[in-house]
Amino acid sequence: MQKILVANRGEIALRIMRSAREMGIKTVAVYSHADRDALHVRYADEAVNIGEAPSSQSYLIGEKIIAACKQTGAEGIHPGYGFLSENAGFARLVKDSGLILIGPSPEAMEVMGNKLSAKAAALKYNIPMVPGTEEAITDVNEAKKRAIEVGFPILIKAAAGGGGKGMRIVEGPADFEEQMQLAVSEATSAFGDGSVFIERYVSSPKHIEIQVLGDTHGNIVHLFERDCSVQRRHQKVVEEAPSAILTPEIREKMGRCAVDVARSVNYTGAGTVEFIMDEGLNFYFLEMNTRLQVEHPVTELITGIDLVKEQIKIARGEAISFKQEDLKIQGHAIELRVYAEDPANNFLPDIGTLQTYITPKGPGVRVDDGFEQGMEIPIYYDPMIAKLITFADTRAEAIERMIRAIDEYQITGITTTLGFGRFVMQHEAFTSGNFDTHFVKKYFSPEVLRESREDEAIVAAIVMEQILSKKRVSIAAPVAGANSSNWIKNRKQI
Amino acid sequence: MQKILVANRGEIALRIMRSAREMGIKTVAVYSHADRDALHVRYADEAVNIGEAPSSQSYLIGEKIIAACKQTGAEGIHPGYGFLSENAGFARLVKDSGLILIGPSPEAMEVMGNKLSAKAAALKYNIPMVPGTEEAITDVNEAKKRAIEVGFPILIKAAAGGGGKGMRIVEGPADFEEQMQLAVSEATSAFGDGSVFIERYVSSPKHIEIQVLGDTHGNIVHLFERDCSVQRRHQKVVEEAPSAILTPEIREKMGRCAVDVARSVNYTGAGTVEFIMDEGLNFYFLEMNTRLQVEHPVTELITGIDLVKEQIKIARGEAISFKQEDLKIQGHAIELRVYAEDPANNFLPDIGTLQTYITPKGPGVRVDDGFEQGMEIPIYYDPMIAKLITFADTRAEAIERMIRAIDEYQITGITTTLGFGRFVMQHEAFTSGNFDTHFVKKYFSPEVLRESREDEAIVAAIVMEQILSKKRVSIAAPVAGANSSNWIKNRKQI
Repeated sequence: MQKILVANRGEIALRIMRSAREMGIKTVAVYSHADRDALHVRYADEAVNIGEAPSSQSYLIGEKIIAACKQTGAEGIHPGYGFLSENAGFARLVKDSGLILIGPSPEAMEVMGNKLSAKAAALKYNIPMVPGTEEAITDVNEAKKRAIEVGFPILIKAAAGGGGKGMRIVEGPADFEEQMQLAVSEATSAFGDGSVFIERYVSSPKHIEIQVLGDTHGNIVHLFERDCSVQRRHQKVVEEAPSAILTPEIREKMGRCAVDVARSVNYTGAGTVEFIMDEGLNFYFLEMNTRLQVEHPVTELITGIDLVKEQIKIARGEAISFKQEDLKIQGHAIELRVYAEDPANNFLPDIGTLQTYITPKGPGVRVDDGFEQGMEIPIYYDPMIAKLITFADTRAEAIERMIRAIDEYQITGITTTLGFGRFVMQHEAFTSGNFDTHFVKKYFSPEVLRESREDEAIVAAIVMEQILSKKRVSIAAPVAGANSSNWIKNRKQI
Repeated sequence: MQKILVANRGEIALRIMRSAREMGIKTVAVYSHADRDALHVRYADEAVNIGEAPSSQSYLIGEKIIAACKQTGAEGIHPGYGFLSENAGFARLVKDSGLILIGPSPEAMEVMGNKLSAKAAALKYNIPMVPGTEEAITDVNEAKKRAIEVGFPILIKAAAGGGGKGMRIVEGPADFEEQMQLAVSEATSAFGDGSVFIERYVSSPKHIEIQVLGDTHGNIVHLFERDCSVQRRHQKVVEEAPSAILTPEIREKMGRCAVDVARSVNYTGAGTVEFIMDEGLNFYFLEMNTRLQVEHPVTELITGIDLVKEQIKIARGEAISFKQEDLKIQGHAIELRVYAEDPANNFLPDIGTLQTYITPKGPGVRVDDGFEQGMEIPIYYDPMIAKLITFADTRAEAIERMIRAIDEYQITGITTTLGFGRFVMQHEAFTSGNFDTHFVKKYFSPEVLRESREDEAIVAAIVMEQILSKKRVSIAAPVAGANSSNWIKNRKQI
């Protein structure tokens, strides 16, 4: 493979091209009209316009991607995450076109793309599952009977679902029928498939996932866990590796289970096996994501492995060059997704221009982004601006470093999740490791964000007054643009 | 220590403040008039103006630093590198003022600040030395007699020197007198001390240095080596850790020697023991730098240790929290010093405004700098713009990553050493590890830099023609500012 096409946009397109460039592989970008000035277009060796801004007219059209490969002579396609990355039909199209998909086989995608077939595959290896139905149900009476057997509270989930759609928690038998009907109709309208399954509801769950790598020679290894329990709107916003609470024994057991899940579909490439974990540290298989994960950098930092390079090598037919026992966890990494969203307004997406955009630097800070100062956040796509990742020797230091990096990050013109990230890093539940996927619901509100901002302002005012009354300091004149800076918010202005 | 003053400017002032901030310690910046808009001034919690632009009127005046501490209530001073960092008189002044210097004792600085007393201290521990005089010489006849005993070629070095001043290579007895007189007069005018010593000249030397840390409880550890052999004008420009050529046995031996050198002066804090290494991998003690080194990040990356935090903890009286056997080399790191210098014009400093200034990002890239787009490089100080550091699992990958990062770095308005760095990374002598401190003299010339640029242009032209004749690709319109980009120089524009 001398040239690859990256069938994605934004930070992940850049991130993939960086590794390709380091390997001496030429890159082809594809872009919609809205992305014509995007960084991934500039970064690539070649760039092909594939249509209008809505994804359904550009990034989601497999035929256009294939045509761009043919035009440019690209031999392989990296799908990134989202868009076509888990589309088995696209994977088949790529294969049939004589091209190489940097990802797993269409068959593996197909099995893992459906929650029920995924469960069935995993069951062969005795992977722990949340107690519940093994088959899709549409009949309400049958479902209720099974729900009583499993024990309330129970969760109704769409078989074809994701992102919280078609999902209902039912506390007891009384309101079962109503909730079931709502779930089925939601699932039908969202996925065209109204079948659901029923499982015990874990009331305080952690989301723990295991990174795996498989090659075409039958080798499968895991690269330890990521804890992605801090979520908003059922989507991850803070991730870390390793988890603050896993014991070495449970880590090893989960790793072995993840490798078995991957083996159940002869998995090749990078994939992620997601588990739910209850307060007793019991873990249950949730699903497998058959692609590179947004939060893969935290795994790269604690293992020293470049996951994109591994994906490319595997797609070239190379065997994984390390064994399970060679892999060790070194240090601690945390990722904050910097979204163009307003945490004080239910994390609704914000749009606009990055009037100031200066990223943090220095030891242990990695920023994966796709923007420069002056650029606009397009309304058509996921509103993620950047991934801010910090790495240090210990978890406590990685948290301190994240706070430092958040304070250095200068963004004006758009509301972001940076302030929310700071709130998470300073919250006792997070620092103690004693948090679950309900973190936001339990602890966060626009009020606490406002209060913490007011506390800071009060402290700053007190300090300022003390200084003014006690000493005169010859201090730098306010710097142009300084008022737009996050990092100076604690500075005394005299 | 609740508050520290950083008696420095530029990237190192920011780098120190970052660690302090992560530790919850408040920071005070000092700045000259020329630096009033500098980033380190903005980053600090407080900032004190200490005078006019020339260092002799600001950064070098110890009394002003002490006064700024008293004004702001700073309890400790981090001197960074350069300026007052190795000034024993300043160290004593700090101590006498009831403040804490984040650095070694005045006594250790004094012994190591003079090449002869440093040698004498090291000799007690049987540290290997380049054969030569053990005492300073000023008499020409006596010197010549000793030179003949040591064997030509020999090196005449100023006892108080540094940076190549008062240094002369003498090939044979015939021109000894003349060279000796030149060395003495250079040393006298540069350091006010004309005494020199004589040692065997190592014709193909590598500069290998060992990072050490000592605490006030008598613990001293080393953090492995850095290879800093790529130099221009006797000053380092590319550094890496670990060295490409050391064996584990030699590494261990050098580490033990470095710890012994530190022990000879009861060293506390971070220090660096420099060795010269000949082609037979014999190493000889050169000198000890009693401060944080410019190139410390490569050591931080391969060990996971934050050296500034360790310095602060040691200054607070804490014991080092790890033992020698806990330290392991993980991966490979390379640093390129990005200077405002023209490699095509004998590396003469360039000044001007950073019209474009966009730093590289993504996996394994760290940038320590002190500038933002639009800022000027002041003429008064060292012309370093940034330190570009890459880290990867292997040396080959760290080199590939460095090339990728150099290509991403966008600087216009000022000529830099970025292109030179690319030349180094691609040179067989560097990639093979078979290089010494004469790398620039042996391989580099303005012509080769020009040729490599022309080669690239020719390749780009051929590729462009092939594409134009064979296929039509719908490609992004040229982007505003794209012509100022380094990273797109290999991109096909159609």
